[in-house]
Amino acid sequence: MHTDLVAALDIGGTKIAGALVDGHGRILLRAQRATPAQEDGDTVMRAVEETLGELTGSPLWARAGALGIGSAGPVDASTGTVSPVNVPGWRDYPLVSRVREAAGGLPVELIGDGVAITAAEHWQGAARGHDNALCMVVSTGVGGGLVLNGQLHAGPTGNAGHIGHISVDLDGDPCPCGARGCVERIASGPNIARRALENGWRPGPDGDTSAAAVADAARGGDPVAVASFQRAAQALAAGIAATATLVEIDIAVIGGGVGKAGDVLFGPLRKALGDYATLSFVQRLTIVPAQMGTDAGLVGAAAAALAKQDTAAAV
Amino acid sequence: MHTDLVAALDIGGTKIAGALVDGHGRILLRAQRATPAQEDGDTVMRAVEETLGELTGSPLWARAGALGIGSAGPVDASTGTVSPVNVPGWRDYPLVSRVREAAGGLPVELIGDGVAITAAEHWQGAARGHDNALCMVVSTGVGGGLVLNGQLHAGPTGNAGHIGHISVDLDGDPCPCGARGCVERIASGPNIARRALENGWRPGPDGDTSAAAVADAARGGDPVAVASFQRAAQALAAGIAATATLVEIDIAVIGGGVGKAGDVLFGPLRKALGDYATLSFVQRLTIVPAQMGTDAGLVGAAAAALAKQDTAAAV
Repeated sequence: MHTDLVAALDIGGTKIAGALVDGHGRILLRAQRATPAQEDGDTVMRAVEETLGELTGSPLWARAGALGIGSAGPVDASTGTVSPVNVPGWRDYPLVSRVREAAGGLPVELIGDGVAITAAEHWQGAARGHDNALCMVVSTGVGGGLVLNGQLHAGPTGNAGHIGHISVDLDGDPCPCGARGCVERIASGPNIARRALENGWRPGPDGDTSAAAVADAARGGDPVAVASFQRAAQALAAGIAATATLVEIDIAVIGGGVGKAGDVLFGPLRKALGDYATLSFVQRLTIVPAQMGTDAGLVGAAAAALAKQDTAAAV
Repeated sequence: MHTDLVAALDIGGTKIAGALVDGHGRILLRAQRATPAQEDGDTVMRAVEETLGELTGSPLWARAGALGIGSAGPVDASTGTVSPVNVPGWRDYPLVSRVREAAGGLPVELIGDGVAITAAEHWQGAARGHDNALCMVVSTGVGGGLVLNGQLHAGPTGNAGHIGHISVDLDGDPCPCGARGCVERIASGPNIARRALENGWRPGPDGDTSAAAVADAARGGDPVAVASFQRAAQALAAGIAATATLVEIDIAVIGGGVGKAGDVLFGPLRKALGDYATLSFVQRLTIVPAQMGTDAGLVGAAAAALAKQDTAAAV
């Protein structure tokens, strides 16, 4: 049987998406369910099985040779389990074995959602052609993933690239993760909005206090809004520079809602990067916006499945 | 011709060491010169050539199949050049081509000194058997290197693992590198001593104001000395936790003069690591002292040469 497709699952706190994807990253079939995030683990799994059922029921399914899962973290690829923060019914949940069962025994590859998005940007997006890249999602949280030596670097448990929870301010504000001064604690959308409000910024008549509203105010010249984005940019720059100094990357790709803020973010970010990326071998680092859209998680999970298929074929 | 040996060079600001090393990491022949660090580039190169000459003049030389160089940084493995901070006569100096010439055309591998020490600890020392490790030297400066997926991760230019110059305090004191709040700026030996002196610690009758003297005072219960080591430990912990969170490592090996301080450093370091290494996948991380002695640079350069030889043989 010729298997020229892979199956992909993108599992988040809001939705569970599935797809059959070809070797060029094209989505040939898709399925989706809302995540019953507050239900028990078996109920959440049923939503995964229903999503998968729409794929296995298709005549295209016979052409699928492997299945990739990008899941909200933490994940543990070494045990095949997941414990997504926003899905309390799943703690050390054996997702890989359950999905393998529902997928008729296909080889299954599990990676964290930041790693999945990185795989997508490297395969089809802004990191294409770069052998050493950091890809980030700056949104409600701050996530990421790494490409090193031309390969996705998922790490033994599939969690590598968690740049949102490195501390760039060791005496800084407590982060929900337990540490202090994490990149996410300073640069996530909710923290950009919180800081602006704390420093006197007030929303317009629509009452919108999101980071996008702060970005609008910053574009209009509001100094408190500008300063909140500058502080976020400084934390992101310190984190990106730390990553480059540790592993050598030549590009950082930034996506997610905050990443869409444009010059309000990228202007101060590029400036701050010069302040922290000082050693000769990190000075050529560039920062660019992400290119992949909402399908990034699916396309990245498909990339991981393809890589697994290739590895299996080589053995 | 059977080549069961490799040649190794360890080039620092104080000495240039050379050796012939076998496949078990044993040094069969060694040579050494003082580094004429303040002389012009050609004079420094002559000291390298003299060191090499003692190796090439030996009957053992015919058994050497490759040569590894571990050099004070920055290095640029992609161009084969070095610009060691402490050797001003070498700026973008074409060390690889000059050494290859002096070594009769042997394949030459160039890595930074932190990467070399990491290669040695992974091959023969405290990181043996660990597929994902950070090795550090905490001394006059703070350097390091990474093993990822069982392989030395040197990065495209040979500089990966520069943990001393990641910022863990983005508003902190200016570092000579140009950034602020770098791990080295807080945790190096001279900074441990400076902080103790600034806070009122005074040396004994011998006038010794080194970090080793501060460590002695800390062991004797001097609270200012204890606090200076605690602050260094906090910065090291934040840097190590950041590294683990970014790339997934399960062991951090610490060597160098400050690394020899023992419990005065390792006690607060292990405690502080718990404060910063919070995500589930980094909680199993352990910190241990280095095992390799002063030959680490040579043994690591030899390891890099052996890896290059294996790669060449596989092609």
